[in-house]
Order: sequence, then C-alpha cells, then structure tokens
Amino acid sequence: MLKGFSVPLTPQGESSSAKLPPWHYSSDCMAVEYWTDPDAIAALLPPSLAVDTTSEGRAFFWFLDWQFTGSNDELTDPARYQYREAFVLVEAEFEGQPVNYCPYIFVDNDAALARGWAQGYPKKLGSVFQTRTFAAPSAAAAPLAAGSRFGASLSAHGERLATARIQLAGQVDDPRTVFNRPTTMRRYFPTLVAGRQDRPAVDELTLSLTDDLTVVDVWHGSAELSLPEVQGEDMHRLAPRRIGRGYRFGMAYSVTDLKILKNNLA
Amino acid sequence: MLKGFSVPLTPQGESSSAKLPPWHYSSDCMAVEYWTDPDAIAALLPPSLAVDTTSEGRAFFWFLDWQFTGSNDELTDPARYQYREAFVLVEAEFEGQPVNYCPYIFVDNDAALARGWAQGYPKKLGSVFQTRTFAAPSAAAAPLAAGSRFGASLSAHGERLATARIQLAGQVDDPRTVFNRPTTMRRYFPTLVAGRQDRPAVDELTLSLTDDLTVVDVWHGSAELSLPEVQGEDMHRLAPRRIGRGYRFGMAYSVTDLKILKNNLA
Amino acid sequence: MLKGFSVPLTPQGESSSAKLPPWHYSSDCMAVEYWTDPDAIAALLPPSLAVDTTSEGRAFFWFLDWQFTGSNDELTDPARYQYREAFVLVEAEFEGQPVNYCPYIFVDNDAALARGWAQGYPKKLGSVFQTRTFAAPSAAAAPLAAGSRFGASLSAHGERLATARIQLAGQVDDPRTVFNRPTTMRRYFPTLVAGRQDRPAVDELTLSLTDDLTVVDVWHGSAELSLPEVQGEDMHRLAPRRIGRGYRFGMAYSVTDLKILKNNLA
Amino acid sequence: MLKGFSVPLTPQGESSSAKLPPWHYSSDCMAVEYWTDPDAIAALLPPSLAVDTTSEGRAFFWFLDWQFTGSNDELTDPARYQYREAFVLVEAEFEGQPVNYCPYIFVDNDAALARGWAQGYPKKLGSVFQTRTFAAPSAAAAPLAAGSRFGASLSAHGERLATARIQLAGQVDDPRTVFNRPTTMRRYFPTLVAGRQDRPAVDELTLSLTDDLTVVDVWHGSAELSLPEVQGEDMHRLAPRRIGRGYRFGMAYSVTDLKILKNNLA
Repeated sequence: MLKGFSVPLTPQGESSSAKLPPWHYSSDCMAVEYWTDPDAIAALLPPSLAVDTTSEGRAFFWFLDWQFTGSNDELTDPARYQYREAFVLVEAEFEGQPVNYCPYIFVDNDAALARGWAQGYPKKLGSVFQTRTFAAPSAAAAPLAAGSRFGASLSAHGERLATARIQLAGQVDDPRTVFNRPTTMRRYFPTLVAGRQDRPAVDELTLSLTDDLTVVDVWHGSAELSLPEVQGEDMHRLAPRRIGRGYRFGMAYSVTDLKILKNNLA
Repeated sequence: MLKGFSVPLTPQGESSSAKLPPWHYSSDCMAVEYWTDPDAIAALLPPSLAVDTTSEGRAFFWFLDWQFTGSNDELTDPARYQYREAFVLVEAEFEGQPVNYCPYIFVDNDAALARGWAQGYPKKLGSVFQTRTFAAPSAAAAPLAAGSRFGASLSAHGERLATARIQLAGQVDDPRTVFNRPTTMRRYFPTLVAGRQDRPAVDELTLSLTDDLTVVDVWHGSAELSLPEVQGEDMHRLAPRRIGRGYRFGMAYSVTDLKILKNNLA
Repeated sequence: MLKGFSVPLTPQGESSSAKLPPWHYSSDCMAVEYWTDPDAIAALLPPSLAVDTTSEGRAFFWFLDWQFTGSNDELTDPARYQYREAFVLVEAEFEGQPVNYCPYIFVDNDAALARGWAQGYPKKLGSVFQTRTFAAPSAAAAPLAAGSRFGASLSAHGERLATARIQLAGQVDDPRTVFNRPTTMRRYFPTLVAGRQDRPAVDELTLSLTDDLTVVDVWHGSAELSLPEVQGEDMHRLAPRRIGRGYRFGMAYSVTDLKILKNNLA
Repeated sequence: MLKGFSVPLTPQGESSSAKLPPWHYSSDCMAVEYWTDPDAIAALLPPSLAVDTTSEGRAFFWFLDWQFTGSNDELTDPARYQYREAFVLVEAEFEGQPVNYCPYIFVDNDAALARGWAQGYPKKLGSVFQTRTFAAPSAAAAPLAAGSRFGASLSAHGERLATARIQLAGQVDDPRTVFNRPTTMRRYFPTLVAGRQDRPAVDELTLSLTDDLTVVDVWHGSAELSLPEVQGEDMHRLAPRRIGRGYRFGMAYSVTDLKILKNNLA
C-alpha cells in the first residue's frame, strides 16, 4: 500500500511532495487592483472561459506569506511548512457568471507547487517578499495603521517580474465588496508520447473550493505596481494601464476538495 | 492558440514551465553502486513491477550536473538552462525483463520538475553538489586521473539526505557492462475531488526513451555512500547494506518521446 | 567622496553592503534556555573574558525573523531589508561583571553579515526558519496562546545545525528577569600578509549598544533543542546537557554606536 | 588556543568562515572587454590610485565558476568548496604603473566573502551563472570550438545586474597579451563607534598575489554585455559604451600572501 497525495508515493507516506488533505492555511496578503489590456486577458483564457466585457481588463496582483499544516502540528517544522506566493487574477466569465482566472502564479516550495498543479494553478518557482508587520514598535515595524507603507516583489531566475508598493489609508468594513468572485483554474497534465503532445492527459476547468474562509484586518490604500518585460517570460503582457487601490489583510482557509467545472477533453 | 508543453500555457509560449520537445541534455555524472534491503525495494514498487530476485537489492545512487537546451541555443541563458539532480535507481522486473525503477529523485529547477513529472520521475526540490573537474591544473582541479577524489551531496529543506565520495582507479572500457537496464517510472497525477482522492487521474508505468545516448570518459573506483534518516523523508529506508563501485562519467541524450508500458487504471 | 559604511564604497553610496547608521530593527524571536558543558564555553572565550562560575554552562539559543530599515522606509524593499538569524549566547564574566558572549551566529543576508562583522558578531550564512503567528484564525495560525506550538531550525550548506520546538504555557510579566545580561562580542579582522597571519589587524572585545530596546508579548513554555554534530562545524560542542524554558516574543531596537571594552592588541 | 583565519575562531578551527592559507583555486572563466565612462571610473578610485589616461575607460567584466580546497581534499565536500563569482576590473594607475582595480564583486558563498574582505575585494552576495562545457557531445554541450556560444548572468536580491554572451572565434596564443595588469583592491574595515564612523579601522591599498598562476584553453570571440540600472545598486554607472572581445578560459592559482601597497590611514 503506497501512500501520499502526489509523487513520490511510499509505504510510509512521509516523502510525498504533498500529503492527502486536509490542508490548512493562514497568510498575510498584499493585493493591488489594476486594469490591463483586455485583449491580453482574452488571449490567455482557456476553453470555456469568456471575456468579462464589464471588467475592462480588471485584475488583481497578489503577494502572500503562507504557513500551512496538516492535522498534526506540521507547522512546527517551518522549513517545510511555510512558503511565499505571488499571482495574478484576471476577471472573466464562465457560463455568464463573473469569475476570476489565474494565468500566472509563483511559489518557493515544492509542496505548494504539487498541490497547485493538482488544483489547476500553473505554478512556477519564484522568490517572493513582502513587508511584514511586527509587534515591537520601531521604524522597522510597519504597523497596521494609516500611513504605513508596504512593499512586495517577485523574481524568478534572478530577474524581477513584479514590484508593488502600497500605503495604508483606512480599514475596509466589508471585504466581500472587494473580493467577491470565485476563482477558476486550468488543471492540465501534458502528454509526452510522440505524435500526441498536443493532446493533454488531463485538461479541465476547475473551481477553487475553500472551507472556513476567513479574511481579517483588511486595509486599503494607494498603490504602485510594475510588471517589467523579462526575456523568457510572458507575464509583462498583463502589465498595468491603470492602477486602483492596494489592500493588506490576513486570510485563512482549508482545502479538502476541488470542483471540476468542465472537462476540456470531453 | 495557447502554447507550451506544461503550464502555464500562453499565446507566446515563453512562460511555460517546460517547452515542447526536443529537449537536449549533457551532464557530468557520479554514480555509486550499492545493495540495500530487498524488502525495502519491494515495498516501493508500483503495480506491474516485480522484484528482481537475482538482484539481491542492487541499486545505484546518481548525482548529475545538467545543462539543457532546445533548438535555439537556450543554453546561453544558464540561469534557466542548468540544473542539478540526484536520484536512486533500484533493480526490478517488468514482465520478466530486468529494468531499473526510480523511486526518489531531486532537482533544483522547476523546468526539470515539470518535464520529470510528465515522464513519471517523482521529482522534488533539493540542493545538489558534486566535485567538478577543471582544466587548469591545481590541487583544486580534480582531474580525471587515477587517485582523484570526488564528493557529492543532496539536501532538502536544510537536511542532508545523501553524501557520497569516490576515488578514481581506472577507466571502464565498455560502459554497457555497467549501465545496461532500461529505466521505468510511474507517471501519476492525483485527483483532489472529495471522495475520489484514492483514484488518480493518470497512473501509468512508463519507460524512459533517450535519443542519441552518449556516455564518455567512464572511470570506476572505490566508493562511500550514506543516506541518513531524516524526519519527514522516507529515502533512508533504501540506505546501503553493502557498497560496490563508484563511477564518474559524462552523458548526453535527447528526449522527444515516452513509452507507456502499462495503464494502471485500465 | 566615496560613501557607505562597509564595502563597496561608491560616490552614490547605494551599493555599500551596509549603509551608515542609524539601523532600525524589529523582529519575532524564539529563544531556548539551556545548559551545556562549561568547559566547552571556557574553550571558546576570547582574551579578557572569564568563565562565569555561577552559570554552570548556561546558554540561550535564539532564532529571529528580522525586518530592518534606515530613515527612508527602506523596509518597502523587503527583498533587501528582511533577514533571518540564529545564534547562541553563552554566559561569561568581564572584569567581574556578568555578560553574554556570542560564539556562533548565522544570517541569510549580506548586509546583516557586514554590519555584524563590524560589531564583532562572527556571522556566517545559514538558512533559518521559525513558526510564525498569523492573524487569520486557522490550524495553521500558531496564535500567541497557551498550548500553541512553535518550531525553528538552522541549516548551513544543506546540513541541519539546530532544531528547536517550544510550547507556550503563559506570559512573562517582566522580561528583564530573563534577559538581563549585556552582550559582548569579539571584533576581529584578520591579516593575510605572509608571516603575520597570526596577528590580526583588529582584535577587540566589544559591547552591543541598543537604543530604544523594546521587548513585547513575552511568552514562556516548555522547550526542546538539538545541536547535532556536523562535519566541518564545531557548534555541536555547545550541545545541551539540560534544557530550561523556551520563550517567544517581539523585540525592537536601533543601533548607532558600539562600545569597545578592550583592545586585545594593546 | 583559538583557531581559524576569520571569525568565528574555535578550539578546533572547523567553524571558521575561512581557514588559514594556502587556498588553492581552479575555475572556468568568461570575461568581456569593454569601455565605460572614464569619469565613472575616476569617481570610484580609492586614495592613491589615479586614472589611467591611456585606457579611455577600459574595463573587463568577469564571470567565474570556482572550486577551491585546502591541503586535505576539502574539494570532496562540494557544498562548501565551490562558489560562483562575478566582478568588474577597471584600469587605473598606481605610482605611474598600470594596474586593475576591483570596485564591484559578487559571490554566492561566505567563505569566499570572508577571504575576499581580508584581501580587499568588496564582495557582496549574488547569484551567478555561466554556460558550461560538457564532455558528452550534444546540442547542450557548448564545446570549446569556433562558433560555440556561451552566456552568463549576475543577479542580487532577485534583480539582474549583468548579462553577457560571447561566441567563440579562435584560440589566443599568448594570454599575457590580454591579461597583463596586476590587480589592486581596497582593504577596508569600518568603525561603528559613534563620532568615529568616518575613520575606518583598516584602509589599505592592496595588491593581489597569486602563486602558480595558470591560464589554459583561452578562446576569444565576439561579445555582448549589459549592466542595467537597478534601484539600490550603483554598478550600472560602469555600463558599457563600447564592447570589445569576449574570452573563455580556465584559470588556477593559490593564495598564501597579500601585498599592502599603501596604508591610507598613515
């Protein structure tokens, strides 16, 4: 009996890159609302997603400092159970309903990469940083308070892919007015057999399911964001034309399930 | 038209974690022959592989410094097109034929991880080092010559998983006497939908296909190998009971195809 | 006019590995009180420090997540202005006064290394992790509350040098009862000129000066600590014989000055 | 008796960031000749070095893959005894003699950083890559042959600081026609005591001494080089105005000594 959610499977199940759910997560988040070229969004959408014509190219760029755990205090092994993440969500439509779609996402941990691929997040490796809030007062503490400034950055292969800064102005009463669309992904596993490399083994539109979603301490403020052009990467085609508000908040949820919206191979 | 071999797929195809084949590789390799507990091998084999009762637990532990490229001199971008790898191959049988099987493998690059998963290599991230040979003579040059000593190590999450050392004794006339088994893998992609997490979406026994395989400058010598026990990992169960010879050589091949030996879901 | 605190000095002063003070810091800290072999402490003390015979080998092992800044919100560039640190403090005496002395310390950032060497901290590079507290409630959040468990680890060159775990029991009313000794270091800069390599250019006993020191949210609890033997390192000679309490807290201070207690070359 | 060349000093001397000489090195090197703004060079020179008016801003940008060892086959511990380096050498004059001076240098290893600071190299941490030559023939092998292309890059804090490419054209008969100037550095150790931070403890002009210098397999060819502007760094002020030839070669030497040309504090 080999155990594990993702490879390698072993009799003991310790080595598997991702263990079976539940996966519990808590994070500090920085997100910047912005508008990009709607055609650039349209060009990235998978089959069965359509442009949201009311969105005018609206997107969010996120940075996250994550801690995760299973059911046995795995978080006391922080070298394995922390990771950092950055991604972009673009607005789209699925069967007439407004959704987000994730075309680019970067993490610094292989367990996060394995879980993400199984859900449909197209994760690659990156180096991600965001300014943190510390409890001990200091010019270095970045408290959650009006006027505080936070920065964040994403790099891969030693090239800067995204830089953001926000300055807190006030608290958001109801975060559901900001983050109100479900997130869709493309779950995709390729075929290497010669002559069939254009026919993936798995190609599904999926919907992220989050148990016990909690969002706390939501602050809004002014924002800056740049997505510079880098050779060997395409994300700069989603660079901002106009920038909205920045947000800083805490978020937690658990993952035990995934919804398949559409099998693109059927 | 979205392009790329593995996610993310984009109109330009630059961002994909792995581009479509051909994939050309060249490497420096260090390998140590050893014997482990045959029961530990048996416990790791996937469906449709059987124990090779003639092997008595024979295995090889490999360390590789890789450079790879597509058809357009991508190797001139070495921050993306080099990686290091370490893996173990255990001896087994498929339908009565002697084969190798790869239960553990580590790399330091996400393109290597994406290509590996598509083939069936259960790759995780690790930090890999091996002593290199340099052309300029020095006590630091480690020439390919009798008496030269080479070391290698594998770590993940800041823990040492494998350490090896070899001392060159002489050249191997015909490397086919050493490396003469085809390599099989388990191509596996999990399901996250609740209630179906024990039924993977893809579960195949595969055979590695290598075009234009070339092995050069093969040296043999005495060897040391340790695979210490590390919390959160299972590889130490394949620790050596007896150690054979060590090898140091160059190897190149190209990948354009994969053979599916068996669909474990059928 | 070349600017900068440490090399490289440049006309603009941006490139210097450490800029001129003030240096403002805030951090989350985990510390474990323990007792080691008093002879191992004695063997590490520099000239002009003596064994504290009342200490019986008392030491503290610390893990810190730092954010730092100058006077211009440099903390909004978190890829440069965050680092992680782990060190051991052993108890000793200077001219009859009880002090701490720092024989081993590891960081993951070169600005921290440059500032540390200028103060007398014998910093090397390491990979450091500690469990973090997150605001959004979850099994992954590790709140500051009785029963919460935290872990921490230090690695260098892919080898685990220290692992610690604590479980919070209660709050500490007055942290001065715990952390009440000033910290001394050996500021040392070697000579490479042949024949003079045993006579350093700088060799001073120094005292750390911290402006506006603030310690907040101090929790104590039970603790585990291991300092395993690693080839090429000597720190395991300070391994614990007996373990006291663990602590988790926030700390902030600024650095603008250093006190030279003794010039060992005079 | 505490041992070690640089901190930390210990009774056993294993932990010291750099051990006592001899230090033996061998490397693969890529270097690009170029001309930058002579005023930018002049602005970086330390006291006692003068502009070389015959040079017209000539400089070399180097990338190196190093292996090093002491006298006991330390190179069999490659996780500790390999590193990568990138630096720029600018042409200058010392007392009327033509010399090189090193204003910027990056490495990925703390032993290299400690040794470098003791010599006068103003090392910071960076991530360095160069295309390697492999023995096994392949499109990925980059042989030493006319037409072969090599690339190299330097990044720090996730930002690309330098990118170079060369294409080999032919072999160089006598490398002394290319690399014929001794290299000078500024050995500098700062003071943190308040009120004296403008008076370093050590400030010397030094000359690199290399025993048994060997340069082999020198190829020249066409070259590209870019040093983009990055916030928080000053090196782009030495960006190329004109690019000369590129070189690829092997180099080895040992270090046991350093020459002090001038004490800037005297």
